Amino acid sequence: MKYTGILFVFSFLLTQISAQDSLWIRRIYDEALLRGHAHENLRQLCKDIGPRLSGSAQAQMAVDWSYEKMNSYHFDAVKKQEITVPHWERGTTESAWYKSINKYEPVHKLHLLALGGSIGTNGLLEAEVIEFKTLTDLKNAKRKDVEGKIVFLNQPMDAAQIQTFKAYGACYAIRGNGAVEASKLGAKAVVIRSLGLPIDAHPHTGSMHYEKDIPKIPAAALATTDADALSAALQAGKVHFYLEMDCREFPDATSHNVMAELKGSKFPDQIITIGGHLDSWDTGEGAHDDGAGVIHCLEALRILNELGWQPTHTIRVVFFMNEENGNQGGKQYATWCLANGEKQIAALESDRGGFAPRGFGLDGPDQYLSLLQSFEPVLRSYDLHVFEKGYGGVDIGPLKDVYPGIPLFGFVPDSQRYFDYHHAPSDVFESVNKRELELGAAAIASFVYLLDQKL
Amino acid sequence: MKYTGILFVFSFLLTQISAQDSLWIRRIYDEALLRGHAHENLRQLCKDIGPRLSGSAQAQMAVDWSYEKMNSYHFDAVKKQEITVPHWERGTTESAWYKSINKYEPVHKLHLLALGGSIGTNGLLEAEVIEFKTLTDLKNAKRKDVEGKIVFLNQPMDAAQIQTFKAYGACYAIRGNGAVEASKLGAKAVVIRSLGLPIDAHPHTGSMHYEKDIPKIPAAALATTDADALSAALQAGKVHFYLEMDCREFPDATSHNVMAELKGSKFPDQIITIGGHLDSWDTGEGAHDDGAGVIHCLEALRILNELGWQPTHTIRVVFFMNEENGNQGGKQYATWCLANGEKQIAALESDRGGFAPRGFGLDGPDQYLSLLQSFEPVLRSYDLHVFEKGYGGVDIGPLKDVYPGIPLFGFVPDSQRYFDYHHAPSDVFESVNKRELELGAAAIASFVYLLDQKL
Repeated sequence: MKYTGILFVFSFLLTQISAQDSLWIRRIYDEALLRGHAHENLRQLCKDIGPRLSGSAQAQMAVDWSYEKMNSYHFDAVKKQEITVPHWERGTTESAWYKSINKYEPVHKLHLLALGGSIGTNGLLEAEVIEFKTLTDLKNAKRKDVEGKIVFLNQPMDAAQIQTFKAYGACYAIRGNGAVEASKLGAKAVVIRSLGLPIDAHPHTGSMHYEKDIPKIPAAALATTDADALSAALQAGKVHFYLEMDCREFPDATSHNVMAELKGSKFPDQIITIGGHLDSWDTGEGAHDDGAGVIHCLEALRILNELGWQPTHTIRVVFFMNEENGNQGGKQYATWCLANGEKQIAALESDRGGFAPRGFGLDGPDQYLSLLQSFEPVLRSYDLHVFEKGYGGVDIGPLKDVYPGIPLFGFVPDSQRYFDYHHAPSDVFESVNKRELELGAAAIASFVYLLDQKL
Repeated sequence: MKYTGILFVFSFLLTQISAQDSLWIRRIYDEALLRGHAHENLRQLCKDIGPRLSGSAQAQMAVDWSYEKMNSYHFDAVKKQEITVPHWERGTTESAWYKSINKYEPVHKLHLLALGGSIGTNGLLEAEVIEFKTLTDLKNAKRKDVEGKIVFLNQPMDAAQIQTFKAYGACYAIRGNGAVEASKLGAKAVVIRSLGLPIDAHPHTGSMHYEKDIPKIPAAALATTDADALSAALQAGKVHFYLEMDCREFPDATSHNVMAELKGSKFPDQIITIGGHLDSWDTGEGAHDDGAGVIHCLEALRILNELGWQPTHTIRVVFFMNEENGNQGGKQYATWCLANGEKQIAALESDRGGFAPRGFGLDGPDQYLSLLQSFEPVLRSYDLHVFEKGYGGVDIGPLKDVYPGIPLFGFVPDSQRYFDYHHAPSDVFESVNKRELELGAAAIASFVYLLDQKL
């Protein structure tokens, strides 16, 4: 009975949100919505710099911009952390079309993007196409049917999934492993249906990989309209595919994570890391992925600082480099924290776009779930309803390996439009709504404010 | 104790969602997301017809289109209900600019829309401008300061409000009552800051009114960028304003509500009405307001019919005419239902845009709140979290007067982007996301499915 009583009191204290807290959160939202910097900062990142693939000149411009920006806000301990990153470039030629054999049909020109990391074609590559719906179908195919051909992996994302990330996850293998599996059966190249939900003319790029001792073959993604057209053409008869790309890998480059802090008043050596990734794919402007995420976290720290808030623990914002094709930023950050004897006590990532906030997910021990859920009563009136087990983020993921039991939190915005833009030329500044972006920054600032107190 | 027990059992039954229900709801979402008609139907309404102000040729084209569409889905009792509506036209001249007095500054041309119902200027109207921040400030002004001038009501919507409809409601009076209050003090015309959240060049029109024995003066809305510029110019000195509009009122016209049913199997004489409004303002394409709402309800009925569902009560979809400037559709529908001795047992409206669904609000007796909340467990996994007291809708509102105690439900989508488009030229088909629209239709179909069973 006594034990139950203590538990009750503990759980009561844990779930107590004071009037003081409510006031602070209201001030955070006012600052974000009435005097926010988020939209203008995202404009600078997207329009003055543009896409920011690891190893590119623009990625380094973004590093410098971030460093200057963090200094301009007078944060503590502004720092560039040197890391090594891969360096792949799309090149200047990227062209593809197909033609039905034995038919007086015009050539069908395609909207296509090389997958990140792909080798080039070394001139024009021409071959017959063979279509598979899934990677499993390809794996089950006979070598004689695939050899010398271009493999077309045409798995649509499942529109019936309410959470679009689940639909993405289910198709991820055709992009990540398509080249390896097609090459095992002697294919000349692989083209995939873009991992995007709308039927439109925007191809979606993204990472792929090769494996030792398996010949590298070119890999590219077709717009969903083109994937449908190619599939229909294949129903009608044989199709010849023409592909030319001069993308290639360069030697590894030096780049940086960029970070800054608000020093903790009571436990300055205990660190809460919040961040997103500064790099992006080289198409579009990396606005939702993940310009919005780094701007969210930057703006959250700016707001808290502007309001004169002093955290108990140290809050560190990190702009990670190289999430898209290697996660070197995330990996090297975790290693560096451990090597420096840092106490990392929690982390949050924003890497799901700048859409209207829905809540937060927890990747970590169950004991933190009740902590997370205790935030709901005060945040519900800000249209936040999701406080549940979930995913943290790619960049903060490696912290789990070096700090077992650390709670990782993921900011959860509405996911419905994310795969309209993800890794596509349409992921530009204009696709981010000012107000939705600002609400994201306010939600994260409020979360950090509460987390710092309750941890 | 026994009474409590009965209550408990009752409340248990009420909140029971069976596995059967879950299955039906999954089938509803599959139909909406994989085989939906909503996006193509909205395209037809917005692109083949366009804006649909009461009394216009396009409004009647929309009536005919709706009637044909409902017949094509083989609904029961497809019907046009004749009603009388106002008929106002914008005309062909709508032009405004201002000039600072005694300064060698260029003329500032304005983005402006006459408010719906406004009289024209009868040639070029020229006058000095006087600015007020609120309607109360205007009411407190002296006649000598206002007489002969153009009143500029420059009240910004409060961006700090999380629910944008609250910010809209707080500014509504400058649009609805500005002309009356300005005229009382002898003003020549009134121009208001558009009721929109973004700072951009899109003016937002909307309804206004005149009062008996108070001289009618022209009324218009400025884009928010222009309102800011005009306010800055007034800070610097006197400003002359030039306004020419040839909008005018015509005699009342005949129009129609359009409706169809799925007949109830057990209680065919008990009717659940669901709907939105078919009319729109004459700028843009009325895509979110309220093309999305009528398409939501049409699609909900189509889905339920397509799946072979037979309701217990009769489900009637109504496309109301004239919500924007008179609500004659809503008023005459309620009167007609009563006159025909109909039993209206509940109603739902969708008139907050085609954005990602958040839930449902109840305007009605408290006893229905637990019913509404009992839907949450099964709908939560469809990203629906709002099940609370709220507002039904303008069109279904009059049902309350003739059926006291009737529960009115409002579909609640995310409100963050609504006032980017509301009553503005930007409210076009392209501003509605296909998937978000489809999710709205599925949410409403699921709600109707549950409501029919639990009522």
